[in-house]
Amino acid sequence: MISLPPPLRAFASDNAAGVHPTVMSALHAANDGHALAYGSDRWTAELNERMRDLFGVQAQAFLVWGGTGGNVMALATMLAPAQAVLCTNWSHINVDETGAPERILGAKLIDLDCPDGKLVPAQIEQQAHVLGNMHHAQPGVVSLTQSTELGTAYSPAEIAALCDTAHRLGMSVHMDGARLANAVAAAGGTQAALRAMTVDAGVDVLTFGATKNGMMYGEAVVYLTARFADVAPYVRKQVTQLPSKMRFVAAQFNALLSDDLWLSLAGHANSMATRLYERTRHIPGVDYDAPPAVNAVFPHLPAGTIDELRDWCFFWDWDVPSCQVRWMTAWDTTDDDVDRFADGVRQLLGP
Amino acid sequence: MISLPPPLRAFASDNAAGVHPTVMSALHAANDGHALAYGSDRWTAELNERMRDLFGVQAQAFLVWGGTGGNVMALATMLAPAQAVLCTNWSHINVDETGAPERILGAKLIDLDCPDGKLVPAQIEQQAHVLGNMHHAQPGVVSLTQSTELGTAYSPAEIAALCDTAHRLGMSVHMDGARLANAVAAAGGTQAALRAMTVDAGVDVLTFGATKNGMMYGEAVVYLTARFADVAPYVRKQVTQLPSKMRFVAAQFNALLSDDLWLSLAGHANSMATRLYERTRHIPGVDYDAPPAVNAVFPHLPAGTIDELRDWCFFWDWDVPSCQVRWMTAWDTTDDDVDRFADGVRQLLGP
Amino acid sequence: MISLPPPLRAFASDNAAGVHPTVMSALHAANDGHALAYGSDRWTAELNERMRDLFGVQAQAFLVWGGTGGNVMALATMLAPAQAVLCTNWSHINVDETGAPERILGAKLIDLDCPDGKLVPAQIEQQAHVLGNMHHAQPGVVSLTQSTELGTAYSPAEIAALCDTAHRLGMSVHMDGARLANAVAAAGGTQAALRAMTVDAGVDVLTFGATKNGMMYGEAVVYLTARFADVAPYVRKQVTQLPSKMRFVAAQFNALLSDDLWLSLAGHANSMATRLYERTRHIPGVDYDAPPAVNAVFPHLPAGTIDELRDWCFFWDWDVPSCQVRWMTAWDTTDDDVDRFADGVRQLLGP
Amino acid sequence: MISLPPPLRAFASDNAAGVHPTVMSALHAANDGHALAYGSDRWTAELNERMRDLFGVQAQAFLVWGGTGGNVMALATMLAPAQAVLCTNWSHINVDETGAPERILGAKLIDLDCPDGKLVPAQIEQQAHVLGNMHHAQPGVVSLTQSTELGTAYSPAEIAALCDTAHRLGMSVHMDGARLANAVAAAGGTQAALRAMTVDAGVDVLTFGATKNGMMYGEAVVYLTARFADVAPYVRKQVTQLPSKMRFVAAQFNALLSDDLWLSLAGHANSMATRLYERTRHIPGVDYDAPPAVNAVFPHLPAGTIDELRDWCFFWDWDVPSCQVRWMTAWDTTDDDVDRFADGVRQLLGP
Repeated sequence: MISLPPPLRAFASDNAAGVHPTVMSALHAANDGHALAYGSDRWTAELNERMRDLFGVQAQAFLVWGGTGGNVMALATMLAPAQAVLCTNWSHINVDETGAPERILGAKLIDLDCPDGKLVPAQIEQQAHVLGNMHHAQPGVVSLTQSTELGTAYSPAEIAALCDTAHRLGMSVHMDGARLANAVAAAGGTQAALRAMTVDAGVDVLTFGATKNGMMYGEAVVYLTARFADVAPYVRKQVTQLPSKMRFVAAQFNALLSDDLWLSLAGHANSMATRLYERTRHIPGVDYDAPPAVNAVFPHLPAGTIDELRDWCFFWDWDVPSCQVRWMTAWDTTDDDVDRFADGVRQLLGP
Repeated sequence: MISLPPPLRAFASDNAAGVHPTVMSALHAANDGHALAYGSDRWTAELNERMRDLFGVQAQAFLVWGGTGGNVMALATMLAPAQAVLCTNWSHINVDETGAPERILGAKLIDLDCPDGKLVPAQIEQQAHVLGNMHHAQPGVVSLTQSTELGTAYSPAEIAALCDTAHRLGMSVHMDGARLANAVAAAGGTQAALRAMTVDAGVDVLTFGATKNGMMYGEAVVYLTARFADVAPYVRKQVTQLPSKMRFVAAQFNALLSDDLWLSLAGHANSMATRLYERTRHIPGVDYDAPPAVNAVFPHLPAGTIDELRDWCFFWDWDVPSCQVRWMTAWDTTDDDVDRFADGVRQLLGP
Repeated sequence: MISLPPPLRAFASDNAAGVHPTVMSALHAANDGHALAYGSDRWTAELNERMRDLFGVQAQAFLVWGGTGGNVMALATMLAPAQAVLCTNWSHINVDETGAPERILGAKLIDLDCPDGKLVPAQIEQQAHVLGNMHHAQPGVVSLTQSTELGTAYSPAEIAALCDTAHRLGMSVHMDGARLANAVAAAGGTQAALRAMTVDAGVDVLTFGATKNGMMYGEAVVYLTARFADVAPYVRKQVTQLPSKMRFVAAQFNALLSDDLWLSLAGHANSMATRLYERTRHIPGVDYDAPPAVNAVFPHLPAGTIDELRDWCFFWDWDVPSCQVRWMTAWDTTDDDVDRFADGVRQLLGP
Repeated sequence: MISLPPPLRAFASDNAAGVHPTVMSALHAANDGHALAYGSDRWTAELNERMRDLFGVQAQAFLVWGGTGGNVMALATMLAPAQAVLCTNWSHINVDETGAPERILGAKLIDLDCPDGKLVPAQIEQQAHVLGNMHHAQPGVVSLTQSTELGTAYSPAEIAALCDTAHRLGMSVHMDGARLANAVAAAGGTQAALRAMTVDAGVDVLTFGATKNGMMYGEAVVYLTARFADVAPYVRKQVTQLPSKMRFVAAQFNALLSDDLWLSLAGHANSMATRLYERTRHIPGVDYDAPPAVNAVFPHLPAGTIDELRDWCFFWDWDVPSCQVRWMTAWDTTDDDVDRFADGVRQLLGP
């Protein structure tokens, strides 16, 4: 029985966190009279400029409602008829989107076993043997997640190698960047790091996440080259991802991208995961496979202890058979949250 | 040449308006630490209770991102295989959603000519002759818009007659209520008026709009009976319409539904359209087909005058060949906005 | 009461006719041991050669099961994301395919009013105003039917004008040629006539019908230029239109295309419709809007006489309110069939 | 170098075989004047009766063009919105249909690892943990193949156990019976064996194959209970699987089902595979994992020998890395074909 008070913020998910004050202020400032809908406003114009600054002048950004919608929109513009998407067995598009890709794209996802959530070029090559065979869906897009659903991250070189392989085989590359900020922060937190793992690595289209990193809602689909972008405006609306009062999405993004706020928030979340790892890894019964790369840890806990800990401070299971859980930090997690939580774990599992 | 200063707020659309201060305050108040995502929060619980109060204890509401998405979600839960949707030729689902229904539903929309934007029961009956014929898509859902895209509104009796016909023929009824508030306000602005034109009339599923009526984003799909609701949670996610930080949608709705704010805002917008009609209808060259039923007027203007007026204060064309335009009011339109605009029209077309 | 014996063959449809003896013989001849499936056989190789002879060396043909499937396959290869198909309100794809295009293509069909079943260029141009507007499905393909569902036929010049308009606006052109043979026969029955109304007119992709013209089953989707053909092999399988024992489709087509059999059969069907028209048009109560262009007539009959005539010799209603019916001839209709039928009509409506 | 003459019929596939003479005669006999299209003919009426005799009076059969189309049609009628299909990683729907299910169903296939091509109940149960979780596609249909793509067959008890598990969890069961005849023949070749592994086991909907078993084209989707059948006529047309001159499909089936011809043909194919196995299994270098259950064997051959053997007598690779090939027999394979082939293998590999 844990007698300590639980932390103010639990470790359920970064989408359980609220909105950063700067973002909230930006929403207020944007609520200034009338502005034409669907992106014909000055906040969206500013956002477009910021995106070109981030990714290069050729980049074109399209604001959307959410991550699943952004992924579907990106893929809908990238796929030719009868093509399939290569992804990991853990990918959000494969397991956490209720079949949205299959329904809206009408395309097969070919999920490849990736124990650490990361594709490798050989897996792409192995799928290429069906190219040209009319009986099989044709691999056309490689979708990778950065940082991954398993809390790991690709290096820029790993992504470049995947892109090279894909492009050589005539495929294009989509990045689900719901937590791209965390990966960039972990890789140094610079614009150079961002570019190294996206546009410079050869990624074609990016779903650039922001909601998990301090926004209220909204993500961006960014076309890193001109390819595929022509149909994007129409497809965005067609897949129900066109916000009407778009200035409010743009204003949030503009706030997040100012003064590298997005990187400092993600870096903070990462550091809180590291702190959580350090504070708990020596507690008897807490068993880690690896230290965190970004903002989540995945400990195994002693059987029979999980429910009590969760009742005290909520988190989600990860792999029930191996008693593995996920503790995720966010932009607003504090040292005190981590320390209280670690104390509770210690009390539960102690002495 | 118009020498007068333009109004502060133009008449482009109600989605060019901002966010009502009460709604903005609710967003602030909801930004209170962590809350579980996807609706497991107290704001959504409150919203569910409010919706049951509005529509009856059997009603089930599902918050979504936007209107197109809400319409698609509703229809996706209502359609059986090989069924089609009956709608007007003016309906938003038919002409303003870039084919989202066809793409995501995989279903035919059968659009019927409705000069005033309103279906009549005989049109439903005329389509019923294909029922049972395997060569034709089977009409399964009647979708009507209240208030309509043409600024008209159905009476409760008209809706009830449509629902009776549809149900008798084995079809169900969807209402696109992007501007339902304006119709309810025009019909008296009471809960009884709301129920009379929705649940009591026999509507099965409602897309309940709020963004055009003072919210920042968010709409609700409301299942007015238990029918079709079972699959709604899954379909909402599958059509990319599940907001993660859902508390912020719920909080806005809760604010709007408190103290009948939603009705007073819509009633105000309606009254501004009436004022605009009255202030302009005697100006030589301004030709109206009908007075406004809700919050838009559709005047014909003299050829060659539209662009100059629009350069001065923006609005959209409606029917170019007949020089018909749309002036739409919003929750924040003021008497001064209307009067300045009318003065500008008079100056342009005068003496 | 009709006391005469009914004709051996009724006038229900050309798909009620059987298989021409030469085609049946070809099926026998093709049943010669083993042959690799899916088109890797000598009959299909011969068919490909025949199609190049017919349409030019650039033409690529893909055999499919049926007409609806052929139309869907063709359109599936032609449409870009968010595009729509322009067609007539009478078109088979619009009203007689149970929504197959919407389901499988995920695309909107925009049906245009065409009292004679024929599109005109101005209708295409009128739809072009939405091009570039992200809120509307983008017209991408014009689909026309030759000969039409109403028994009319386009002249080569009319088709060329449609193609020119479509191409100028960035659209491509699909021809549903379920009864193309009848149109070619009516236009002289030469290869030049075929080319004039297809490849020379600018049609991009043709669904080339054969089942209604003496085959047992099977149609061809013919890419008249290289455009769109690359994805055709994959899309054909993906839309379930790849026959496994393809040699039997190819062998039928080869028989039909030998010695212009396809043209003589269609020409015969046409002539039977003309004979039927001539033998019945002076019968009091039989009212024609126009003489037949191909192999169907659409008379209006006196109210109350239709069911008795149909019970005696089957045919289908066309427009019930105006007592209009369709009498369709086929490759195997005989003079005697026509004359007996005309005699029955005369007896029924006489004196 | 093989100096012997190759067999008359190779071992590529049972769909490389031709049409059984009795079936061909039935096609001739059905070519008798006019018959209404789409199943309103006496051959289809007879077929319906035969299907009720085979599977019970409640069974409803729908003739379709091909196997992929039949599978898609069956699943299209069985799936509710947001549901997924559970199948094996080897299943035809998963790997050999170019993504037709995903495109036309808009549904996810969840493929489960089955080294012998057979699902087991525990795999169904393991997938059930996502039921009720809105973030995941909901397993709704279990699709199994009998006999399997790997040449194995389920026992009736195995199928019954799968059906029990599926039904208990609220799922339904589809059987891809492209080679059901071979499985029935292997299980005794009686109607009781057929029922034991289909309707009596609890299978809901069956794709009943015939093309691989002596027909020219055509399969049947059989609803073994009344469930799901109501929408079948519409869905068949919508997925492009409605043959117009349906009498010719029905006539073939009627011939095949007369005097148990379908079972004797399948039994013969099976016996030829057994003969091939026996004649080759002792040849040095030919390595079998298991004897054939139905009409295919899957030997491993010495590296470097496969191409020469294939050049002499064609067959397909199965698993290139392990030098595994597939030799498939058909209804028309003869003892002489087998013996010649075995002699060639022996000459190639022999001492």
